[in-house]
Amino acid sequence: MRVRVEPDLTLSEPIEYPALFLKRGEDKRLREGHLWVFSNEVDVARSPLTEFEPGEIAAILDHACKPIGIGYVNPASLIAARLVVRGVANGLDRSSLIVHRLNVALALRERLYAEPYYRLVFGESDGLPGLTLDRFGDVIVGQTTTAGMERLKDAVAEAIVKVLKPRQLWWKNDASIRALENLPSYADLGYGEYGPPPIVREGGLTFEVDPVGGQKTGWFYDQRENRDRLSRLVAGRRVLDMFSYLGAWGLRAAAFGASDVVCVDASQAAVDAIGRNAERNDLAARVRAVRADAFDHLKALREARERFDVVILDPPAFVKRKKDFAEGRLAYRRLSELGMQVLAKDGVLVTCSCSYHMPRAALLDAVQQGARHLDRSVQMLVQLQQGPDHPVHPAIPETDYLKGFICRVLPA
Amino acid sequence: MRVRVEPDLTLSEPIEYPALFLKRGEDKRLREGHLWVFSNEVDVARSPLTEFEPGEIAAILDHACKPIGIGYVNPASLIAARLVVRGVANGLDRSSLIVHRLNVALALRERLYAEPYYRLVFGESDGLPGLTLDRFGDVIVGQTTTAGMERLKDAVAEAIVKVLKPRQLWWKNDASIRALENLPSYADLGYGEYGPPPIVREGGLTFEVDPVGGQKTGWFYDQRENRDRLSRLVAGRRVLDMFSYLGAWGLRAAAFGASDVVCVDASQAAVDAIGRNAERNDLAARVRAVRADAFDHLKALREARERFDVVILDPPAFVKRKKDFAEGRLAYRRLSELGMQVLAKDGVLVTCSCSYHMPRAALLDAVQQGARHLDRSVQMLVQLQQGPDHPVHPAIPETDYLKGFICRVLPA
Repeated sequence: MRVRVEPDLTLSEPIEYPALFLKRGEDKRLREGHLWVFSNEVDVARSPLTEFEPGEIAAILDHACKPIGIGYVNPASLIAARLVVRGVANGLDRSSLIVHRLNVALALRERLYAEPYYRLVFGESDGLPGLTLDRFGDVIVGQTTTAGMERLKDAVAEAIVKVLKPRQLWWKNDASIRALENLPSYADLGYGEYGPPPIVREGGLTFEVDPVGGQKTGWFYDQRENRDRLSRLVAGRRVLDMFSYLGAWGLRAAAFGASDVVCVDASQAAVDAIGRNAERNDLAARVRAVRADAFDHLKALREARERFDVVILDPPAFVKRKKDFAEGRLAYRRLSELGMQVLAKDGVLVTCSCSYHMPRAALLDAVQQGARHLDRSVQMLVQLQQGPDHPVHPAIPETDYLKGFICRVLPA
Repeated sequence: MRVRVEPDLTLSEPIEYPALFLKRGEDKRLREGHLWVFSNEVDVARSPLTEFEPGEIAAILDHACKPIGIGYVNPASLIAARLVVRGVANGLDRSSLIVHRLNVALALRERLYAEPYYRLVFGESDGLPGLTLDRFGDVIVGQTTTAGMERLKDAVAEAIVKVLKPRQLWWKNDASIRALENLPSYADLGYGEYGPPPIVREGGLTFEVDPVGGQKTGWFYDQRENRDRLSRLVAGRRVLDMFSYLGAWGLRAAAFGASDVVCVDASQAAVDAIGRNAERNDLAARVRAVRADAFDHLKALREARERFDVVILDPPAFVKRKKDFAEGRLAYRRLSELGMQVLAKDGVLVTCSCSYHMPRAALLDAVQQGARHLDRSVQMLVQLQQGPDHPVHPAIPETDYLKGFICRVLPA
């Protein structure tokens, strides 16, 4: 069966989409606001998933044939379809829809930030499932994580050029999550000409970003507001920044007046970049970067009886999949305990997890268990969260992934 | 049985406490860090609760007679005892312990805040179960909520005078929660002389506080950092502040550049105070206060097609007890829907709950359900929480009570 969408503002001629039928009752979550269809929710007798191409656009219908909206399908993925438009009054593959969504996303960021440095599009939360866009002034770094969005890439690029007139658009399409959608891994310029690397401005500092070789899209905007929180905590203090990547936490701490900052990262490229970023911001005298494994280095610091007033733990995701939870939780527990062991007496521990599958409460438990084990007592001062340029979709818990805590650690 | 505590730094001569025995296994939660003993956890065969006076100090022992620590008992309360000191090396009724805890609490606030306006002691989280102290410069407003802390009131007052040398100490002991401990309701000066009312400074503004007639301890410091969040959201916008009390949200919005602020409160005293506070801060031209029931007034605004760019909903607790949850949740749902109905097109909804029994996720669900019902879509930008002068005790979920969200509300 095919569903016809009539012309409207965004559609100049009628268009037909193949129908994807849900099983009875499986429309409920979508009607409550979620955008995902899991493969076991599809009525494959009426609409075999195998008849769809990866990324093909389809009309999503409930058991009673009532349309829910238009989305795209990936027969190879556990998330068999993602809803992009509610109802069937709008077509999907017209760039005017993408331009509209981009403008709505941009309006929020322009309201929130004085300068054009932010996550511009955060997938589902901005109505563009599978698309991430980060803005570094006139450079955009994009990532598609679904076959459907990969197929819309040209329309997205067109919309970006129209709305933002960037100097460069990079596709940083090397996330491991792409493998779940059978997408290849690559990173390349999608628009514009090669030139100097983009610069990110945060809290009055500037950092070099590498849109090809960097982690994720090059910069962790999601932690920006959390780093702002250091302002009242670090003046005149010794700070340890673990898993420091380009040194964002450590250099922000130095700029807030930390007396002495040690950044630790396992990558030599990151350590070199921290050095350059420290020089660039005139903070090199108070910032030192060390290449080391985090757990090993914390143990070495503990043995050497080195103590810091503020310890920041911002590791990569330890719980990438649900089944990694038990092991990952243990890693967070060990890490926070090691962090506390190198803390000075009335110290501050900043601990974070970007794992969706590590619940906020479990991360706090990890801190508390470590504290009890070491006979310390903890006051949790601030709950950390992703910045407002990574809005949470209230019906999609998966969009709320970053959590953390600023804790005061005292002798019991 | 009685337990003897030997002299030490805080104790000049040995002291004996009656023993409170726990049933087998009931020591686990305490050992993990919690401080409460529920009445059904006490081994009343070995230590009948009826033999304790309300507020009497006791040594808390596990089933095997191993001491956990020293706390105070209230045989009339569901929370039969609260642990104050771990181990039995320290006595409890010596003011030196209270002085020490007060100094530890003060050190945190002095690190966090440039000026002496904050919650100085937040009960269990600051190691002083049942005690709340708010500081307004040289005026302290205290509240005891347990019989045990009520009995220690003189030692607390002595410690406060020693550490802070205040001009006044008020006891604002009229919280309804005191009835659970069979404590009387009163509000009176505990130290110092009557004089002009205290002033609170927040975000560069000043407000008059009434330590006798005001709500709670007179000021809601817990929302301060949340009010700071308005800075990027209100410039040039129309703002509606519901349940405004002294106008803290509304006046902060005006100070951040809101074009027009309406504060609504059911109390004439609050409305009058908002007027005085607006004058005092030179914001009267852009701030109007209305005395009305919140639900009625929102309906009237909706019917009159009045629209605001930012709507702030900071109601009193709708879920005071667990059994009120179903009804209270509905009230939050109705309120957030009414709030959205008076929002302009790309509007911002700020919604809060100070009910411990209203979980964070349920409050967000209330927003999402209201939005789906009105065919709006929501981006949750910021999760609100109590300020860091209300630290959360990681082992005591009850200390984490304030939640809220800043949401962008769009047409679906």
